[in-house]
Amino acid sequence: MKRIAIDMDEVIADFHAKHLHLFNTNYYESLTIEDLKGSRLWKIRPEFSKEILDFVDDPSFFRDLKVMEGSQEVIRELSKYYEIFITTAAMEHPSSFQAKFEWLNEYFSFIPQMNYVFCGNKSIIKADYLIDDSSRHFQGFQGQGILFSAPHNIYESGFIRVNNWYEVNDYFFNNNRQTK
Amino acid sequence: MKRIAIDMDEVIADFHAKHLHLFNTNYYESLTIEDLKGSRLWKIRPEFSKEILDFVDDPSFFRDLKVMEGSQEVIRELSKYYEIFITTAAMEHPSSFQAKFEWLNEYFSFIPQMNYVFCGNKSIIKADYLIDDSSRHFQGFQGQGILFSAPHNIYESGFIRVNNWYEVNDYFFNNNRQTK
Repeated sequence: MKRIAIDMDEVIADFHAKHLHLFNTNYYESLTIEDLKGSRLWKIRPEFSKEILDFVDDPSFFRDLKVMEGSQEVIRELSKYYEIFITTAAMEHPSSFQAKFEWLNEYFSFIPQMNYVFCGNKSIIKADYLIDDSSRHFQGFQGQGILFSAPHNIYESGFIRVNNWYEVNDYFFNNNRQTK
Repeated sequence: MKRIAIDMDEVIADFHAKHLHLFNTNYYESLTIEDLKGSRLWKIRPEFSKEILDFVDDPSFFRDLKVMEGSQEVIRELSKYYEIFITTAAMEHPSSFQAKFEWLNEYFSFIPQMNYVFCGNKSIIKADYLIDDSSRHFQGFQGQGILFSAPHNIYESGFIRVNNWYEVNDYFFNNNRQTK
């Protein structure tokens, strides 16, 4: 059985919706996902970069993120044909460990806890596919990287790209069926 | 540069010393490491198995384990020639995340945090070597497993075995120099 490694933030967990809401509420702004295209919130508001990063270091930040549309259904279907691991760069935010674990347990309870991986450098991951919004993780990854569209990566090219979970479904069950 | 993945408990962190001390103190016993040979504490005292496992679920349990003799010096030397990752089955004890992170940061600060991996099923690890006290993690591992002696594995055979960190040093710097 081939193995798919799947990132959390901006792939199965809607990081931006909460982050933007917190920022807009605290700083009386009305930034949208459109404003983040090709950039990051802390880059377009550098004067608040510390505060913007501090939101994410709150231990509860990751506990109530919304589930990305379609991710549960598609991953549940994929899990019948592929071994699924969740591989998240949690070492960048150590305060997030408990919330990320509980979130996965609540929304993806069909994935065994033994298949959660909290790491930093993802070159340690041995899998056939890696679905991630950060293309830097494809360097040193020996399987096939699949870039999940997010505002910050929207202008990157040179990668297999999926725009949502329905396109992931197509990639594995239509275009790519022969490689299972 | 080849990569060595290294387990934490019973390999770089002295799990048994604290666990036995807690058990002996709480239950007025005087079990020693000798008594654990070929077994586990919860197996030889099945009537207290829940309490024995509960000790480990205390979030602070892993924070003050002693460092295994020689591990810091040998790993520091290995890190000049090999890429070092710490790969621990933390998903078995989710309450341990923070303590394990802080412990690594304190005693192995020369290993980048991005090279810490908290996982469950270690077949996800891509490395050339895995130093571990649990031989089950060598199943599905494509590199060379190296069994670090611990009371519970003392009668297992069929693996490359090291009894302490000085033997790890010999393995990599004497016997095995040509494979770097």
